[in-house]
Amino acid sequence: MNVLPTLDDIRDAAARIAPHATVTPVLRSAALDALAGAELFFKCENLQRGGAFKFRGACNAVWSLDGGQAARGVLTHSSGNHGTALALAAATRGIPAHVVVPEGAVQAKLDAIVRAGAILHRCAPTIAAREATAAGLERATGAVMVHPYTDPRVIAGQGTLALELLAQAGPLDALLTPVGGGGLISGVAIAAHALAPGIEIHGAEPAGADESARSLARGERVVDFVPDTLCDGLRGTLGEPNFAALVAHRVAITTVTDAECVAAMKLLWRELKLVVEISSATVLAAVLKARGRFAGRRVGVVLTGGNVDLDALPW
Amino acid sequence: MNVLPTLDDIRDAAARIAPHATVTPVLRSAALDALAGAELFFKCENLQRGGAFKFRGACNAVWSLDGGQAARGVLTHSSGNHGTALALAAATRGIPAHVVVPEGAVQAKLDAIVRAGAILHRCAPTIAAREATAAGLERATGAVMVHPYTDPRVIAGQGTLALELLAQAGPLDALLTPVGGGGLISGVAIAAHALAPGIEIHGAEPAGADESARSLARGERVVDFVPDTLCDGLRGTLGEPNFAALVAHRVAITTVTDAECVAAMKLLWRELKLVVEISSATVLAAVLKARGRFAGRRVGVVLTGGNVDLDALPW
Repeated sequence: MNVLPTLDDIRDAAARIAPHATVTPVLRSAALDALAGAELFFKCENLQRGGAFKFRGACNAVWSLDGGQAARGVLTHSSGNHGTALALAAATRGIPAHVVVPEGAVQAKLDAIVRAGAILHRCAPTIAAREATAAGLERATGAVMVHPYTDPRVIAGQGTLALELLAQAGPLDALLTPVGGGGLISGVAIAAHALAPGIEIHGAEPAGADESARSLARGERVVDFVPDTLCDGLRGTLGEPNFAALVAHRVAITTVTDAECVAAMKLLWRELKLVVEISSATVLAAVLKARGRFAGRRVGVVLTGGNVDLDALPW
Repeated sequence: MNVLPTLDDIRDAAARIAPHATVTPVLRSAALDALAGAELFFKCENLQRGGAFKFRGACNAVWSLDGGQAARGVLTHSSGNHGTALALAAATRGIPAHVVVPEGAVQAKLDAIVRAGAILHRCAPTIAAREATAAGLERATGAVMVHPYTDPRVIAGQGTLALELLAQAGPLDALLTPVGGGGLISGVAIAAHALAPGIEIHGAEPAGADESARSLARGERVVDFVPDTLCDGLRGTLGEPNFAALVAHRVAITTVTDAECVAAMKLLWRELKLVVEISSATVLAAVLKARGRFAGRRVGVVLTGGNVDLDALPW
């Protein structure tokens, strides 16, 4: 049921979200190019509505619903950018958004979700409690569940950024995104390979949540792991359709340490003058670590988000 | 001799710098619009080459020289963004840049100027020593002096950002920039009024370096003041042609405290996801303080630079 979207689905998504989403700029940096020995094209999704690429997928999901479905609202579980994105997307259609969050989630993130207009539902911090709460809400409200990264409407929405990036940057040798649940890289791989079959798709993953790298190495999805990384946006478990997409698109993963991410984050702030999350810095950390993979090439790099607690910077 | 440039000069400057400068994006923020009660169009010169609008003026000056002049190089005194900008601009033409800096200047800034390719000349931290050193260098090298804000080539270069902003944002009711020496606001006022005579030109100035506001109030240039502000980019003294431009273009100045700038800086980082200097935050601080001046209007706001010491944030 979680079939992967096609290029047509992604093009439909692009048309659907166009009135609401930002066409984010692609920035360059001579200093970072010199450090990497590559031509880097930074797709600045930290400048997307809600401060993260997640708005694309959420917005496509919300505007894919028929009138009857939409009236009952949408539902998800997320204490991070997807929750905010779904709330913002629901607001563009004037429908309710229910977000299930675990007790103990960071208050600043919950505040952002509430500010975006969501109705918050708290549950115990276990997967069982989360699923029970979500199922109960689905029954009670009829709201449509929008999973943060396995939903094909979400994957199609995330893929729209690859269409934009290729149009903005011109031909690329490789595309590189962070990997958490895999919604972004799945959509990007599908869109990019449909337009440019020769392009390499790379993922960057924190060493403390490297289940995607291990899943690809093992040939089956690793789900039994406890994330241990500062990259709070990348602690989710690689989804099943996402794993299939990674395999189909021969995605290569580079793992990076939190220390490498902190250093890369600071570099991005200093050289690009952008506030980006530590999760986004995985990509620059990967380019600098696995130089052989990227040197001398034109590489599209996705900066996924910029929602940072400015009072608790990691350096 | 420091005549002000015309719209034609500014258009020539735009053509001259086009191969080298970045057309910086204009960003919006629904959250900041709501706070301000106005429609704000942020011109992101922190994303300009060298991290500040200063590259525009420096680049125009460098490429205005004839071949013989250019071969002898350029010269300025600055321990800030203009020094870096002139070095970067000189590098685009392959000519030397001499920068006179006072003993005691911040090492990080000097490092940036050297990285940009300048030849550094140190002098005692007095205006007399600076002028003697610069005059000696001019005699010895034949390099052309490019003053940071009184040089008409520099003013014309800074004015190019108003041409861009008006093309990007559409009609505006007002334009607002920080005021230090006045090079930026002079160029912006000349360009904007030539294209849109009805547009209001506003300046934002730190209360601890408010000689422009006092100069306008008194009707003559105030030069006897000791700056006391965290806004390191705005400590220079309003120049003579700049004062004339402020008067001619009926510029209104709003003064803001350092505390207001720190708060506005943090807001810009959080909502726009941009690294901007505290000097740049004067404009948002002014919009939030003098709400009556801007409420309900379309306001172009210049974010002048993003060169920040990430290890010494002011909050």
